[in-house]
Amino acid sequence: MPRTSLDRFEQRKLTRAKLIEAALQLFSTSGYEHATVDDISQAAGYSKGAYYFHFSTKDDILLELLRVWTEGRSVVLAQGGEMDANPREVLHEALANFMSYADVPQWPGVLLEFWAQAVRNPEVSKRLTQAYAGWRKTLTDTFATAASAGVMQLQSAEDAAAVALAAHDGYAVQIAIGSPGGKAMTPAELVEALLAPLEAAAASEGRQAAAR
Amino acid sequence: MPRTSLDRFEQRKLTRAKLIEAALQLFSTSGYEHATVDDISQAAGYSKGAYYFHFSTKDDILLELLRVWTEGRSVVLAQGGEMDANPREVLHEALANFMSYADVPQWPGVLLEFWAQAVRNPEVSKRLTQAYAGWRKTLTDTFATAASAGVMQLQSAEDAAAVALAAHDGYAVQIAIGSPGGKAMTPAELVEALLAPLEAAAASEGRQAAAR
Repeated sequence: MPRTSLDRFEQRKLTRAKLIEAALQLFSTSGYEHATVDDISQAAGYSKGAYYFHFSTKDDILLELLRVWTEGRSVVLAQGGEMDANPREVLHEALANFMSYADVPQWPGVLLEFWAQAVRNPEVSKRLTQAYAGWRKTLTDTFATAASAGVMQLQSAEDAAAVALAAHDGYAVQIAIGSPGGKAMTPAELVEALLAPLEAAAASEGRQAAAR
Repeated sequence: MPRTSLDRFEQRKLTRAKLIEAALQLFSTSGYEHATVDDISQAAGYSKGAYYFHFSTKDDILLELLRVWTEGRSVVLAQGGEMDANPREVLHEALANFMSYADVPQWPGVLLEFWAQAVRNPEVSKRLTQAYAGWRKTLTDTFATAASAGVMQLQSAEDAAAVALAAHDGYAVQIAIGSPGGKAMTPAELVEALLAPLEAAAASEGRQAAAR
């Protein structure tokens, strides 16, 4: 392959990545409705033509952001399934990573935009539904595995997964709007607050079993 | 007071209520950014003049909706503080009512708009912060009371309150975007999933104490 062609390919990838990054930033601050294709192109340092080379509509880049977010969270969450060394620590870490947006603080604001658009855009709604369904399944399996390992006591792994998922969304809201009503918990603290009661019940049962 | 004057006063109250109801409906479907003062007035069956008699801007009616929502939730939540007859049932009911939007299904969609606007509108942000701070305090007191009554075992009433608040927001997201990834839990089921582990730990400790 001639060198110029490879360069052009690399250049296109860079342009695309910069457009996506600009959209992430703009949607989290101005909001999806306010940001225009012009705004996104300008913020990335390109012309509108460059935008339309990579995306056909404004919706397109929102869907691309949705893909990046959902795939990233799925990767993070899957790590909780591998409970080799210390099941309790692996679970805490996977959940804390799932809740955490410290590395890309724009995400929580963009999640608000995904959710608002889901009400009006069937494609956003469909993809969100698929992602949540996957996470719910992974979380249910992870909780069930932790319960089997004696790490926690559960009445229902499915319910625990639903609560953890609601906590993720609610925590993202609190980060996006500036932790209203109190200092921000860290993701690790939130996970501790979620899991400690489940673990305490298991520990208590364990003490009873030992006493018998 | 002459009768015509009272009628006019009543008429104004009705107009105002209808405008607020129309805004609630429109913001939850079209979104805050898309809905115009014209849309709201028309949907309520009035002229723009009627709108501007009651509100000076579009922001104004959003803030009024925010007031209605926050005051309503505060009333619901305060009921959990009165744990006379059966502390466990009172807490479950108060929390389930706090999570529930079955009576006005437009609220979860409007919450998404409140949150998105909070990122950009300092007044929305300030009022949300005040409301959440109040709820966090009420919830912390309620959990502490339940723990004192032996209904549940808590490591931290504050953490339990933070998790319950995050669960409220996350549950509202799930209702607004159509319970992605599974059938919808009822508010009572969500509260059961939240509180059962806390109650199980207390019950288990109780059994141990009895065995000693």
